[in-house]
Amino acid sequence: MTGPLDYVETQRVVLFSEGDPLRLRGGGRLDHVEVAYETYGELSPERDNVVFVCHALTGHAHAAGLHLGAKKRGWWDNIIGPGKPLDTDRFFVVAPNILGGCSGTTGPLSLNPATGEPYYLDFPMLHMSDLVAVHRKLMRHLGVERVYAGVGGSLGGMQILQWAIDAPDEIEKAVLVAASSRLSTENIAFSSVARTAIMSDPEFHGGRYVEHDTVPRLGQKVARMMAHITYVSDQSLDTKFGHRRDTVGDEMRMEPDFAVEHYLQHQGDVFLDRFDALSYLYLTRLLDYFDPFADPWTAERLAAARTQFQVTSFDSDWRFDTRQSLRMVEQLEACGAKVDFAEIASPFGHDSFLLQPPGYHERVAAFLKD
Amino acid sequence: MTGPLDYVETQRVVLFSEGDPLRLRGGGRLDHVEVAYETYGELSPERDNVVFVCHALTGHAHAAGLHLGAKKRGWWDNIIGPGKPLDTDRFFVVAPNILGGCSGTTGPLSLNPATGEPYYLDFPMLHMSDLVAVHRKLMRHLGVERVYAGVGGSLGGMQILQWAIDAPDEIEKAVLVAASSRLSTENIAFSSVARTAIMSDPEFHGGRYVEHDTVPRLGQKVARMMAHITYVSDQSLDTKFGHRRDTVGDEMRMEPDFAVEHYLQHQGDVFLDRFDALSYLYLTRLLDYFDPFADPWTAERLAAARTQFQVTSFDSDWRFDTRQSLRMVEQLEACGAKVDFAEIASPFGHDSFLLQPPGYHERVAAFLKD
Repeated sequence: MTGPLDYVETQRVVLFSEGDPLRLRGGGRLDHVEVAYETYGELSPERDNVVFVCHALTGHAHAAGLHLGAKKRGWWDNIIGPGKPLDTDRFFVVAPNILGGCSGTTGPLSLNPATGEPYYLDFPMLHMSDLVAVHRKLMRHLGVERVYAGVGGSLGGMQILQWAIDAPDEIEKAVLVAASSRLSTENIAFSSVARTAIMSDPEFHGGRYVEHDTVPRLGQKVARMMAHITYVSDQSLDTKFGHRRDTVGDEMRMEPDFAVEHYLQHQGDVFLDRFDALSYLYLTRLLDYFDPFADPWTAERLAAARTQFQVTSFDSDWRFDTRQSLRMVEQLEACGAKVDFAEIASPFGHDSFLLQPPGYHERVAAFLKD
Repeated sequence: MTGPLDYVETQRVVLFSEGDPLRLRGGGRLDHVEVAYETYGELSPERDNVVFVCHALTGHAHAAGLHLGAKKRGWWDNIIGPGKPLDTDRFFVVAPNILGGCSGTTGPLSLNPATGEPYYLDFPMLHMSDLVAVHRKLMRHLGVERVYAGVGGSLGGMQILQWAIDAPDEIEKAVLVAASSRLSTENIAFSSVARTAIMSDPEFHGGRYVEHDTVPRLGQKVARMMAHITYVSDQSLDTKFGHRRDTVGDEMRMEPDFAVEHYLQHQGDVFLDRFDALSYLYLTRLLDYFDPFADPWTAERLAAARTQFQVTSFDSDWRFDTRQSLRMVEQLEACGAKVDFAEIASPFGHDSFLLQPPGYHERVAAFLKD
């Protein structure tokens, strides 16, 4: 066993350029696509030990380990590392920031080569397949033709599912956690409220807020506070905060008083520093339209695939609930795919995929060991 | 049987004035309290047939019948009227707008007699008992000492519960529908996001938006859109809207496209015309702090009461779910109260209390007939 993942660095690479643009599923193209990514472990001489990790809505490439001088470890450090389920003694783990994001990979605030200005709302609408096309190009850049396992939670899992559909020979094992093959109407509704909050904010300036040296602070904060509630469970909020408040007895105040209010304010505030409102718009919109089994090619492609799927849901996850996972399982099995499904008991809601409820990591480890 | 309730009128009465102010539970007082209310049916000579209806968060006094020239019937017209469960051939139904509201009863936009200006955020924080004190004064104004039945859904039910605690001899039967004796932490969280949206809106102007001839449009709209999602169920959104959208195939757009988005936009927009942001702040905050069984007097008072309770929840209501009703039932029974509880099957979420899922109206009618 090697030591822990201290220290790691984010790397950057230009994967598409004017002579070799990224042609988008929706018809447009991007003439310059740069990708931020990290890797952990060593690529085997046979180049057959790649585990590709896709992050969720507001994630980034720093999935594991420590950046030099930093104190906070990567967002999925509990599952990636020596001896962990995504075992860096065995696997070469690749974790990029996704297309449309705001942490090093090309997104709406990147410069449009045609104008020399940020894209803003001229950035093209993205399809899940566009994110996958960038992942696949990154693999070829690393000299890899086939991925041993693709692993992702939430939007991350949906990227892996789309990859298995778009290139059925490239992923041997697909680990889809707290994911969905089509959002619920309620999911779309919540994201629509979030976008309304952002786009109606007077500081949004039609998406050109950077030019005005501002951000749509109110809208972005409210969007995140609301979304955060949907990522946790009723029970976990009760357990963590209950009705604890600053005032006592019959005292009341309009300003935040309950512990859960202070917590949400904090979550909303830190989100302003770490994420961009336009990326939030583009990536939530991408999710709304994600519906791969509506595509007539999907069944045919999956029938040709040898990919083994592992689908995991969490019983307290009401944002991407077990019914959504079960529908995905049925759709995959109807295409002849092999699927290992389980619902894990966990009190933490959708965020369970980032945590370690009993049985979850063990399950992923077993699937990757086979 | 008399004819249908065509036509009804809203009445107004000043219930508290400088010489006889409303002394608030929190210690302050209101020197002028006016109440808007409607009545349906006739008060019996014995004055023993009163059914008192309390509305929910954004309701008003126009609970049933038609206003002259109007097309839309009162918000609970399906349950109030001749031959209906709240049978106006038998009962004298009283329906006021609540204290802190914005439809005729004194609230934050009412004039403060001390300054001659609207209260705005100088309006006192309200306790559920303050709303009840106004209801009780209205009853005395109508010459009634005892209410045969108090009926309310959601916040309406909580007013009835508080009334049964504050004046245990005044309510013979209490009908509590989709209510709670204490909000969940998640409920407080959602309301906190709504308040943040309103109070951070640049058009809020510290609550004095009327002076600026504006309203916190963005915040109030977003608050309502979000809250609306919590009033319905995942299933009802799927059934009603599914993934219907304006675009087709691979087309996408950032602006509202899905049917559920247009619906939420509409709900948000009409809310701006029919409700006031400050009332929304005060009444949601009142709910956050509602916790009558934390009061040491509650058990003693309920033990002295003869009130019969009927508690009803709906299986798809996740805003005030069955667990909350069951806890209330346990608390009431622990105080020696008689409680008839049932969970009704209904796909419509919290809004079920306004609709007619099978068994619901029948149940209320049977309880009031006994």
